[in-house]
Amino acid sequence: MGYELYYWPSIQGRGEFVRLALEESSAAYVDVARIDGIAAMTRLMESSERSPFAPPFLRAGKLLIAQSANILQFLGPRHGLAPKSDAGKLWAHQLQLTIADFVDEIHDTHHPIANSLYYHEQTVEAARHSKHFLAERLPKYLGYFERFLSANSSGYCIGRTLTYVDLSLFQIVAGLNYAFPKTMAKASRKYPRLIALHARIAERPAIAAYLKSPRRIAFNQNGIFRCYPELEA
Amino acid sequence: MGYELYYWPSIQGRGEFVRLALEESSAAYVDVARIDGIAAMTRLMESSERSPFAPPFLRAGKLLIAQSANILQFLGPRHGLAPKSDAGKLWAHQLQLTIADFVDEIHDTHHPIANSLYYHEQTVEAARHSKHFLAERLPKYLGYFERFLSANSSGYCIGRTLTYVDLSLFQIVAGLNYAFPKTMAKASRKYPRLIALHARIAERPAIAAYLKSPRRIAFNQNGIFRCYPELEA
Repeated sequence: MGYELYYWPSIQGRGEFVRLALEESSAAYVDVARIDGIAAMTRLMESSERSPFAPPFLRAGKLLIAQSANILQFLGPRHGLAPKSDAGKLWAHQLQLTIADFVDEIHDTHHPIANSLYYHEQTVEAARHSKHFLAERLPKYLGYFERFLSANSSGYCIGRTLTYVDLSLFQIVAGLNYAFPKTMAKASRKYPRLIALHARIAERPAIAAYLKSPRRIAFNQNGIFRCYPELEA
Repeated sequence: MGYELYYWPSIQGRGEFVRLALEESSAAYVDVARIDGIAAMTRLMESSERSPFAPPFLRAGKLLIAQSANILQFLGPRHGLAPKSDAGKLWAHQLQLTIADFVDEIHDTHHPIANSLYYHEQTVEAARHSKHFLAERLPKYLGYFERFLSANSSGYCIGRTLTYVDLSLFQIVAGLNYAFPKTMAKASRKYPRLIALHARIAERPAIAAYLKSPRRIAFNQNGIFRCYPELEA
């Protein structure tokens, strides 16, 4: 069965966590808004029946599923990217929700006041927010995930095999490398296992092929991860 | 089986969404940090094995589950507070994750810069953030949930019976009434079904008893929902 992914066509954003799982699984999917434009996406959001609040969302047969962590919770077991036990599934989802919180905080480094404003309309607040984020929150989140990687000889976050959580951590490291290169240059000493996980996942055949393909949208200044050097100063 | 809930003992916060589900179910639970202090809670967060990033978390037998939406996803089917079908469960969880996003944005009205700072250290930014939040985000979220209530003759969000999503929407309305009373006074016209849902849930026997009990912590200026009249000016 083919999936339909609905997400903003010009950014990686929160949709990228889903794209990576689909690509690693070599699942058949259409990135709808990149092919047909965003009208098909916004139409689904305006319906009154089980419509999503925001993209990304995934159509799988009759199901329309939103919230990236919820989509991954659905896809994981179908494509061998989640633990098999119920307890393991809850744990993987818990980690993914923590990643989602981290992503929200990363977004707020450049948009602490309002999404409806441009970055240049909130640069003072963004600088103040980012200073706290880089000093307090980024080390707390990265240290948290490093801890589980350290405790697990497989090099993955959970058990002996790859899960969607590892793919999402790859994306976190990739995005932070783009957004905060100076901070991340120092991070390899503090978070060696996270950095190693990122490198290892980039070499997986399906992911390596994806990253080289036009399906991987380049990081840019409209997404979650943005490079404003002044925020790292 | 009795549950152990771990959450900050002096606020409703994100733990309240779990407390409401436990109370509605008349489930046996101990609110651990309110009885024994927070040391037992922080100890669990410092372990290296499946430790939560942040409270709330719930111990259920051998399981330790964090993230309020994940906890509710676990509790819902066990206590008749979730749809029975897999599709219904995904949909309820999707709505709960959207509520979690809303809660994050409500929190940021008074803490747009950093959690490590006091409110009085970020009042200018909070006022600016709140203005956008009240004009743009609050109507978008409330309107979204009102839409599903309007489309459903049961008066509940999903299907014909109460789910944890309805309990969480009760909490959202209760909290917004405390934090933004002027805005919410006008909301009864715009979101009549949400307001009616709040009133209806407050009268459910188990919830009414809970709200009158000392187990219900009063809203206060340390929680997610805070009343700073200047933010609504």
